[in-house]
Amino acid sequence: MSSQAPTPSGTLSYEQAGVNYDLIDPLKISAQRAAAATAVHMATHGFSEVTASRGESAYVLDVGPFYLASIVECLGTKTLVADEMAQLTRKSYYDGIAQDTIAMAINDLITVGATPLVVQAYWAAGGSQWFEDRQRAQALVEGWKKACDTCQVAWGGGETPALAGIVESGRIDLAANCTGLINPKSRLSVGDRLGPGDAIVLLESSGIHANGLSLARKLVERLPQGYLTEVEPGLSYGEALLAPTMLYSPVTEGLWKAGITPHYCANITGHGWRKLLRHPGRFTYRIHTVPPVTPVLAFIQRHAQQDDREAYSTLNMGAGFAIFVPAQDAQKVVEVAQSCGIRAWVAGQVEEGDKQLLIEPLNIRFGDDDLQLR
Amino acid sequence: MSSQAPTPSGTLSYEQAGVNYDLIDPLKISAQRAAAATAVHMATHGFSEVTASRGESAYVLDVGPFYLASIVECLGTKTLVADEMAQLTRKSYYDGIAQDTIAMAINDLITVGATPLVVQAYWAAGGSQWFEDRQRAQALVEGWKKACDTCQVAWGGGETPALAGIVESGRIDLAANCTGLINPKSRLSVGDRLGPGDAIVLLESSGIHANGLSLARKLVERLPQGYLTEVEPGLSYGEALLAPTMLYSPVTEGLWKAGITPHYCANITGHGWRKLLRHPGRFTYRIHTVPPVTPVLAFIQRHAQQDDREAYSTLNMGAGFAIFVPAQDAQKVVEVAQSCGIRAWVAGQVEEGDKQLLIEPLNIRFGDDDLQLR
Repeated sequence: MSSQAPTPSGTLSYEQAGVNYDLIDPLKISAQRAAAATAVHMATHGFSEVTASRGESAYVLDVGPFYLASIVECLGTKTLVADEMAQLTRKSYYDGIAQDTIAMAINDLITVGATPLVVQAYWAAGGSQWFEDRQRAQALVEGWKKACDTCQVAWGGGETPALAGIVESGRIDLAANCTGLINPKSRLSVGDRLGPGDAIVLLESSGIHANGLSLARKLVERLPQGYLTEVEPGLSYGEALLAPTMLYSPVTEGLWKAGITPHYCANITGHGWRKLLRHPGRFTYRIHTVPPVTPVLAFIQRHAQQDDREAYSTLNMGAGFAIFVPAQDAQKVVEVAQSCGIRAWVAGQVEEGDKQLLIEPLNIRFGDDDLQLR
Repeated sequence: MSSQAPTPSGTLSYEQAGVNYDLIDPLKISAQRAAAATAVHMATHGFSEVTASRGESAYVLDVGPFYLASIVECLGTKTLVADEMAQLTRKSYYDGIAQDTIAMAINDLITVGATPLVVQAYWAAGGSQWFEDRQRAQALVEGWKKACDTCQVAWGGGETPALAGIVESGRIDLAANCTGLINPKSRLSVGDRLGPGDAIVLLESSGIHANGLSLARKLVERLPQGYLTEVEPGLSYGEALLAPTMLYSPVTEGLWKAGITPHYCANITGHGWRKLLRHPGRFTYRIHTVPPVTPVLAFIQRHAQQDDREAYSTLNMGAGFAIFVPAQDAQKVVEVAQSCGIRAWVAGQVEEGDKQLLIEPLNIRFGDDDLQLR
């Protein structure tokens, strides 16, 4: 997908783990062009799209009194870890899996300044049999409900199709869609306010979240006890991977109540810290403080024999969400996050200069070529 | 799922075709209860849910100046027919498949009186390889765009995950989510206005649409030439099945412009004509006029050896959408539909009496026990 530094032999990269973005990207580009061309229809309804939201994490419409934001997000392959671990431990991990799925949608939706309001569940099973395991199904329901409670969203409904022949037998394809409002409209955050002098606040992750799982699963082959290999005493690799993704909407809502409107937000997901380069503008992002690396991520980096550059280009490495605010608000963001039970660090600042991310404590530089999302 | 009349030996029912609702239903009920309990969160945001929309086809929130409606819908297994036919004919059917997927969401969303505004695409492939077939991928993009154009919605974005290990290799799991507004609020249609004397207008279907495909695919085993068996001269069974689902939002939008607000709407999908019993009230629905049966549906009924009762309880049998309006508006509804290129019939009326659907020309009665959706 993007140019990467050569990596030592024995290193396990994301592409080696089986995801080939080169094949997907032409379709994505074609789809993005076609999608952009549909914006004209909004005039028919007396509305307009917020064009700057194309390329951002959620799509935004101007519907008059407020903005409307919506998104669909797939969990990915984290359920495969849950299924393997359930075989090994006889526990169900689908309460956490439910939170992961909702987090994928919620944490993206809030980047544009939206308050999430409604979540819809998409649970496509490989056959009716999936639902025979009542413990697992109930865990999915309860975890979904609990995540909705945390984010104060209404669970509007959803789909539970049985798709034998499409979804593999015994598996389930999970996704969430989320709709929210940007209200008042001054909360809109699609990048126009970001500028030099802004501080970068990083919020802690709980672990791998739901990105990098192909790599994490591939790695199991290298571990003597597989998923039961201990990451730290008493914590297996499998359990550590299954720590549910942090839900960050309590923080963004808390910021609003505290009178802080972020200049920009980035959900640190599929491209690791390269997501800090997401904003379309040309700025230098200088990081002076790197949050502690979550043990499971340090474990993955070590066993995959990745250098720091490779690890930070793929995994969240302990930082799940970035909030860009005026420097004078940065400490307050940390406090609001902490009041939500989420650790946060004033990690760096935005500067004039080439488009690049400088992680100074690790001597890493990512340039414009390292992230091509649009 | 529901009590059904005994069927003659040799009959192929929906349950025999491999979908067991008994296994799914306890989960659905548990999920519905948990979902309903999340409505309390809306007060935090100064909003409220339209509780009557639970159990309807789309979820509705009251956000002040208008209502917000949202939904996610899965296509189901129609892609398996497209994939088989592509092997046989070297054509791609994914433009029609795209329309089917969008129709599943749009045709449900409009039942509550919403104007669809944004569609998100959920295209989960069994691996990056799915996207290697550029013709197929491009057809999917173009069909999606065209359906958005027909419905005048913005294609907001979506997800194109590669889910090896969850989605079967070479397959794709397709879903759409749709968000819309009920604006002005007087367009809300969640059933409170339906009453005796209302007319039932049925809109034509194009064929099987996207429900009943498990049965239709199972049937292929009985056909001498499989999907290439002719339904009528020059039209193969496979091609006939793949006729894209009608998009009905031009009709509901046309009605609004013509000054007609339906008292209720029903999208005729998974339970065939039993969906006409969807409204929670106790009314008798008397049908005096049955639309012509689409050839492919007549073919399925004949080869599956289903009697009329079984066929109308599973398939749309030529009627894809029902609109309930005051009797004096009925003929106008037919005209608006026809101006959109969709045939329609004033097919019956709502009466006081037991909850039942009487299809008089066919001597069929469905009672309250025949549809348990809530």
